[in-house]
Amino acid sequence: MHATNLQIQLAARPVGFPKLSDFKAAETPIPQPAEGEVLLETMWLSVDPYMRGRMSDAKSYAEPVKLGEVMVGGTICRVVESKSEKLKVGDVISGFTGWQRYAVAPAKLLMKVDPALGTVQVYLGAAGMPGLTAYFGLLDVCAPKAGETVVVSGAAGAVGSVVGQIAKIKGCRVVGIAGTDEKVKWLVDELGFDAAYNYKREANNLAKLRELCPSGIDCYFDNVGGVITDAVMIHMNVHARIAICGQISQYNLEKPEMGPRMLSMLIVKRAKVQGLLVTDYMPRFGEGIKDLAGWIKEGKLKYEETIVNGLENAPQAFLDMLNGGNTGKMLVKVQ
Amino acid sequence: MHATNLQIQLAARPVGFPKLSDFKAAETPIPQPAEGEVLLETMWLSVDPYMRGRMSDAKSYAEPVKLGEVMVGGTICRVVESKSEKLKVGDVISGFTGWQRYAVAPAKLLMKVDPALGTVQVYLGAAGMPGLTAYFGLLDVCAPKAGETVVVSGAAGAVGSVVGQIAKIKGCRVVGIAGTDEKVKWLVDELGFDAAYNYKREANNLAKLRELCPSGIDCYFDNVGGVITDAVMIHMNVHARIAICGQISQYNLEKPEMGPRMLSMLIVKRAKVQGLLVTDYMPRFGEGIKDLAGWIKEGKLKYEETIVNGLENAPQAFLDMLNGGNTGKMLVKVQ
Repeated sequence: MHATNLQIQLAARPVGFPKLSDFKAAETPIPQPAEGEVLLETMWLSVDPYMRGRMSDAKSYAEPVKLGEVMVGGTICRVVESKSEKLKVGDVISGFTGWQRYAVAPAKLLMKVDPALGTVQVYLGAAGMPGLTAYFGLLDVCAPKAGETVVVSGAAGAVGSVVGQIAKIKGCRVVGIAGTDEKVKWLVDELGFDAAYNYKREANNLAKLRELCPSGIDCYFDNVGGVITDAVMIHMNVHARIAICGQISQYNLEKPEMGPRMLSMLIVKRAKVQGLLVTDYMPRFGEGIKDLAGWIKEGKLKYEETIVNGLENAPQAFLDMLNGGNTGKMLVKVQ
Repeated sequence: MHATNLQIQLAARPVGFPKLSDFKAAETPIPQPAEGEVLLETMWLSVDPYMRGRMSDAKSYAEPVKLGEVMVGGTICRVVESKSEKLKVGDVISGFTGWQRYAVAPAKLLMKVDPALGTVQVYLGAAGMPGLTAYFGLLDVCAPKAGETVVVSGAAGAVGSVVGQIAKIKGCRVVGIAGTDEKVKWLVDELGFDAAYNYKREANNLAKLRELCPSGIDCYFDNVGGVITDAVMIHMNVHARIAICGQISQYNLEKPEMGPRMLSMLIVKRAKVQGLLVTDYMPRFGEGIKDLAGWIKEGKLKYEETIVNGLENAPQAFLDMLNGGNTGKMLVKVQ
């Protein structure tokens, strides 16, 4: 064990795209667990797009991180000291303990990790929040039927790559939109997407979607927003269902972008657009994890990880993820 | 009976707001019914916002009216000649026979009107398509619960006025948005809305909505779109449901208006926005008409009509309706 804790704290609220100087590393005392709590050593930290929202003080679904506070985030940790009968030293758990080397948490808020899937960090990805987001967003909001066309933006990310594979399991035609040729190749060759394209190479998203979705678009799982989503709306079918999971194209703009008003299009297509937050499905997480873990064991659900070593490199890993530098889940290996 | 038919035909596709010269009156021969058909004499013609869409050749949910064709529209007619066992001379029906004095139609496409509600033209309003649009849009898409706050735009129109009253029947707080002080007074004093305001007198819709909806907005029934809808989205509650029925503020623009992108807001509020077309509910029309007629008989659902005399005045009635010149249902009394 280290002699002190290391925290990555929020140093400044970003203006536009975040910078390394918006974060600062701080040595702090190792906290002590009270009755019912455990002391945890962080093994893996997840960096995710939603964290950009928490760095801002705009009103949102969750409180912003305060300046000088440790950044929030999902983690996989090992129990190093226990004052609870629920967990013993050496147990591995998934929690929400933030960007730090050590943390104290009530045992009842932690989920013990089943090592049967081979790796523990899969509980930050395909069998964790990103996988559950994909699962409930696709199956509950979009509810695709076999034979329908499902489009996913941010398709090579931790959420999008699971969305597309579940849609394939359900018998859909799946088209992914991603930001590099390598990601496109991975989606089609490794994950079994029917088609994918690199939006950075396409001047006209609508023309490309018409080519790849000759029967129109029935379901759209949106991680990106902006002009890509505008194009999808024009090519959607009657009774299309759209899950809005993320709008990463909009998060780092210094002032809000204007776009074409699209509500008339919703009438023409009698389409549904619904925002999605995975924590609303907490009572059903068990059902989701069971299906996701089952598909992973059967080899039907594949995943890739982009791993950065060292907690001190978490800010750079986060910025790279916002820039699309990851394929699959972006993880920080802390220790 | 007249010696000839009179039709109001589409003469030109409007650019921006329609003009009287976009229509032309034409004397044509009275058509003859074939086996299974009836000859109808139009008593009442409904003029509605959706007709603006049919005058344009943009792709939509229905075919545009062709130049030189009779304008489409819902009517109440009397049977004057019958070649069907289903209907006899003198029967009154509701149909979709357009802006003309006489029409021929297959008897099986016509619905015989129950005179028990006192007037026959109510089947073009509160007990017809506008009432059914309000009924299914509010109850199926928004599904308001007692105690929730429901906002309706275009609140004094044929659809909006029924939406608000059904929401009151269901125990909601109801706030209407309309375009004259007289309409606002009618909504509150006659129809029992909890509050209403004249958007033409308010520089700041958001401030007014905050004042009138202190607990936020749970359901929104939108007939209008544009800046009013932008403001509603900002003040909506978590898990808000929005039915998009019309976007009358957008129909007569010469080029599409840009607006703030609002999909990030849908994530923050986990809100649903869904486009609505009443014909999708055709299998359930019987259920809707039964409830609407019941509420009318019990005095729980009130309506007003703005009546223009003479088929030749239908174009002006239509333009007035687009300009908000009606309170309640805009009708043309043909003969």
